[in-house]
Amino acid sequence: MNLSEYLHDRRDRIDQALNRLLPPIDSHQRTVVEAMRYSLLAGGKRIRPILCMAGAEAVGGNPDTVVNFACALEMIHAYSLIHDDLPAMDNDDFRRGIPTNHKRFGDAAAILAGDGLLTEAFSVMTRRALHPEISSEQLLEATRVVADLAGFRGMVGGQMVDIESEGVRPTIDVVQFIHSTKTAALIRASVSSGAILAGGTEESVSNLSRYGDFLGLAFQIRDDLLDVVGTSEEIGKPAGSDLEKNKATYPAVLGIAESEAREKQMVEQALAALSSFDDRAEPLKDLALHLLNRKK
Amino acid sequence: MNLSEYLHDRRDRIDQALNRLLPPIDSHQRTVVEAMRYSLLAGGKRIRPILCMAGAEAVGGNPDTVVNFACALEMIHAYSLIHDDLPAMDNDDFRRGIPTNHKRFGDAAAILAGDGLLTEAFSVMTRRALHPEISSEQLLEATRVVADLAGFRGMVGGQMVDIESEGVRPTIDVVQFIHSTKTAALIRASVSSGAILAGGTEESVSNLSRYGDFLGLAFQIRDDLLDVVGTSEEIGKPAGSDLEKNKATYPAVLGIAESEAREKQMVEQALAALSSFDDRAEPLKDLALHLLNRKK
Repeated sequence: MNLSEYLHDRRDRIDQALNRLLPPIDSHQRTVVEAMRYSLLAGGKRIRPILCMAGAEAVGGNPDTVVNFACALEMIHAYSLIHDDLPAMDNDDFRRGIPTNHKRFGDAAAILAGDGLLTEAFSVMTRRALHPEISSEQLLEATRVVADLAGFRGMVGGQMVDIESEGVRPTIDVVQFIHSTKTAALIRASVSSGAILAGGTEESVSNLSRYGDFLGLAFQIRDDLLDVVGTSEEIGKPAGSDLEKNKATYPAVLGIAESEAREKQMVEQALAALSSFDDRAEPLKDLALHLLNRKK
Repeated sequence: MNLSEYLHDRRDRIDQALNRLLPPIDSHQRTVVEAMRYSLLAGGKRIRPILCMAGAEAVGGNPDTVVNFACALEMIHAYSLIHDDLPAMDNDDFRRGIPTNHKRFGDAAAILAGDGLLTEAFSVMTRRALHPEISSEQLLEATRVVADLAGFRGMVGGQMVDIESEGVRPTIDVVQFIHSTKTAALIRASVSSGAILAGGTEESVSNLSRYGDFLGLAFQIRDDLLDVVGTSEEIGKPAGSDLEKNKATYPAVLGIAESEAREKQMVEQALAALSSFDDRAEPLKDLALHLLNRKK
């Protein structure tokens, strides 16, 4: 299998679906809708929706049946970036090479664009007609899993601790908590919701959840490393900004070499979680190896 | 029927359910959880969950079967107040007589507490075990209605236009748009979701939605009027703050007498929307009349 063609094809299908699902620009509330579209269409790797589709595929489902649900995960990811970038949070001016949402639309519109994307994600997940081949039970359960892992138990909780840890000498325990909630939780939700929607067994959903956790941790270690060793051009925002903000990162606690070793370990554990799957889990395996070597 | 006893009883049942549903204070992310609980437990009239239960009752359902779902509406209401009060939005220091969330916990925690409450609301709405007597189809549809009316089409869109209208001479058209989205949308969602969950017919859900729209408009006109004629002690925040901020309100556009006339009209239209219901819609009728005369 050619991973780069696979990713290209999936990104195309996801972008087409996202375009169909985009909020229309109405006369009254156009500012917030424009701000929502701005961040949703600012590019990005579409990793979470790709993982959702790959999760469905791994349990023998047709990935196209979950593409609309997968788009909701990208909306949640986009909302989290908008809120994370706010002056009250990470105070970042650039994201993916363009001004962050609040730099372009102002703080109020950025807060509301994030709120709008988060809420719209749940509208998309629960709109019966968008998921004709999925049962209502599976839709409910997948939506519940996403809500749990995106909220205070997961992403929101991790972002809180991340902010609180700035300037405090981080311990490996805190760094691990932040990474497993702030990043890995939504990655886990993406793979496992895809598997739930495609009717995966409890055991396969649980294995894919473990895969998602390890992949998410590896993904975040790589992000941390890129902030140290990458160039601003490669990563689309100023390099070294984590260091400058005294962020709780793996390299800050363990150094570069040990962080790379941990990343490799996490990828190996992600692959081990796939051991009981057949070749329909091939994309998930290749994705894990690909993310290990990414430069942005 | 004694409305004040009815409201008291319902508030008790809602507060008990909210207490069971409250996020537990964990070791790592305790700040965000404490901030979520702070606003959720800061009192309030619990109007939205009461309306959800009354909507179920009006179509012949047992209101207790929707109490957990009703609590999710209060979480959404609490999130919207936290974000509205932020310095980048309305910049309010007091709410319900106590410091606003960001004054107590800081801006970052307040943004995340809002995000956490909004996300948790959807977790509660989609958690199968919390709604044993409701079908998955009805749960999905009610959740979708709430998401649509809370997002850019409704509450979020209205808040955006509200912020944009500050300092601009408002027209009645814009004021009406803001009120019907910012306030009435979630009121409508509360009544109609209750009716959907209790198996109401399409026609009854549509009538209750109209009731909710008119009630929501009347409710917001009363809020606007109280800001002008109420005392700070009565309303729990500085009186006259809308005027000071040049907010787009009914009194600002139409004056006090005409606003009172419109409020009365809206209540009459709300009552008219209930004409085809039997005495199980009595609480909704009494609620509309009660809100017309409220002092806070």
